[in-house]
Amino acid sequence: MAHTSHTGEAADCISVVLHRRPDGAPRKDDFELVHAAIPTPGDGEVLTRNIMLSIDPYMRGRLSDRKSYATPVQIGEVMTGETVGEVLASHDPRFLVGDVVVGARGWQTHTISKGAALTKVAAGVVPLSTYLGVLGMPGTTAYSGMTDIGKVKPGETVVISAASGAVGSVAGQLAKRAGARVVGIAGGPDKCLWVQEVLGFDACVDHRANLEADLADACPRGIDVYFENVGGNVQRVALSLLNNFARVIFCGMVAQYNERELPPGPNLGFMVAKRVHMEGLLVFDKPGRMQEWREKATPWIQDGSLKYRETILDGLENAPDALAGILTGDNFGKMLVRIGADPVG
Amino acid sequence: MAHTSHTGEAADCISVVLHRRPDGAPRKDDFELVHAAIPTPGDGEVLTRNIMLSIDPYMRGRLSDRKSYATPVQIGEVMTGETVGEVLASHDPRFLVGDVVVGARGWQTHTISKGAALTKVAAGVVPLSTYLGVLGMPGTTAYSGMTDIGKVKPGETVVISAASGAVGSVAGQLAKRAGARVVGIAGGPDKCLWVQEVLGFDACVDHRANLEADLADACPRGIDVYFENVGGNVQRVALSLLNNFARVIFCGMVAQYNERELPPGPNLGFMVAKRVHMEGLLVFDKPGRMQEWREKATPWIQDGSLKYRETILDGLENAPDALAGILTGDNFGKMLVRIGADPVG
Repeated sequence: MAHTSHTGEAADCISVVLHRRPDGAPRKDDFELVHAAIPTPGDGEVLTRNIMLSIDPYMRGRLSDRKSYATPVQIGEVMTGETVGEVLASHDPRFLVGDVVVGARGWQTHTISKGAALTKVAAGVVPLSTYLGVLGMPGTTAYSGMTDIGKVKPGETVVISAASGAVGSVAGQLAKRAGARVVGIAGGPDKCLWVQEVLGFDACVDHRANLEADLADACPRGIDVYFENVGGNVQRVALSLLNNFARVIFCGMVAQYNERELPPGPNLGFMVAKRVHMEGLLVFDKPGRMQEWREKATPWIQDGSLKYRETILDGLENAPDALAGILTGDNFGKMLVRIGADPVG
Repeated sequence: MAHTSHTGEAADCISVVLHRRPDGAPRKDDFELVHAAIPTPGDGEVLTRNIMLSIDPYMRGRLSDRKSYATPVQIGEVMTGETVGEVLASHDPRFLVGDVVVGARGWQTHTISKGAALTKVAAGVVPLSTYLGVLGMPGTTAYSGMTDIGKVKPGETVVISAASGAVGSVAGQLAKRAGARVVGIAGGPDKCLWVQEVLGFDACVDHRANLEADLADACPRGIDVYFENVGGNVQRVALSLLNNFARVIFCGMVAQYNERELPPGPNLGFMVAKRVHMEGLLVFDKPGRMQEWREKATPWIQDGSLKYRETILDGLENAPDALAGILTGDNFGKMLVRIGADPVG
């Protein structure tokens, strides 16, 4: 990654911009670190000092030219990503200097945002990182998917792929609270152990081992709800075990985000015979869910009953590695980059 | 097809039984014509003389050993199929000799049924054949799919595969009544012409011609609802044109019912980005819909506003050919076999 200064002076705002579109897995030198002066907010705008940056699988889609639900990041543009930060200057009366806010977007140390994009959060109640993970977009995604599509009934079998991830770990714990038998799928024995022992899933299957036989063993009564975060072979095996009237929540397919050509999928004949309901989910379609989830889950974070885990890389310059890692499962739990220190006091 | 008499005398009940499981497309000699005495109904049972037999794509599934939602027909068993018939003898007080009933099952001239399986229909109001097609299981399937899954809004684009078939022709006309732009997919120019000119679809694309370009041309604003009866390449092309929040009604995939190995399906990455809702449908899951549909649609048959078309083969011995034909699209509209004459007067 090259370091350039656009101004050559007072260069205190550092941003990661897209240097070229990755071919396959993103690499560090697909990005460029750019130094510039700290910008000044205009009318209705707010300047934040970013503390923590969320790294999420959807970001891979923003690096491609492929048409999708969101505009891709352009070459030379600052890479997008949600942050939690501290207000340094505000021309929006709703935000004061020192407020902690979520919603400023960008892989950068300082961001200018419209006030309408920001949400003030309480400092000192829960760790600030949770506003980007378990209480943020990933947690809300899990909550929406389970509430609107999964509709888990007690005694049903629920399977969660990427079970140790930011979304999967919440989805599975919600299914447990709903009285289901919950089976995770994760990569490697460490993650599987954590999913069973800490998250309290009934079982967790290592997709790098004998997935087909192990998942069938773990789901003796078939699968009623499948929460899809992965795609590929994991998807194929999980769909083969669906029961009549099963629901499949399509949240992501991280296994194929680096693929140049999309592989074929499963034959869909089972859709009719089993009357399966499959539905795709993007969290921003129902904006009210975020606040609803934050209010519901904050006490569960405080009393320790909702478990979560984070991998935090230190320093903005490590954001490209963090993204590359999340696409291959190097992270354990929610992936974050620390950009600056928590506010004092 | 061999002709055998199990009794050698008073052999007036003729049945088509499964002789061996078809390998690929069913053939006439996979079945056997069996003569026997006309049976006598027991307690609570009804004997019908069958007039018309419905031939439907789902029947191919009953010929395979593959596990599905229904038990396969066993070798030597009478092939299953819905009939409309006349009561010849009844030990159920709800049915009188001469009543016309739907629900007796079997490729045969005479059937013994439990009274609970039968529904009395009015004779002389609409052609009896309609109780097996446009007013029967296929029509109700279309109605259920559009009501429970399709939820068409005015101005949306709705695509119907097998558009000239018993289900598709009703599904498309319902979408027109809901104010949608309706595009059919059918096999060959004759069917396409009928779908446009008689059913009144806005367009109909011949899947044997240039499907990919023609369907895109016919759906300039993409596809909001896809009614799936076919599978294979038609499915692949239709799914590639889905809009955000599209609904896909999985009713059948007739193109693959004769396949020995199921081909792969589409990559499902679009499910997330487009928030697609896909759902499978079997008409018997909501038994109330049949009566509801019959009451709603009978006036539309009487006033001629709901169009339908039938292919009727004459003689029970032609039922195997009728089934083979429906799996390759030889039929035009609802496929039926006439077994006996309509009741007199």
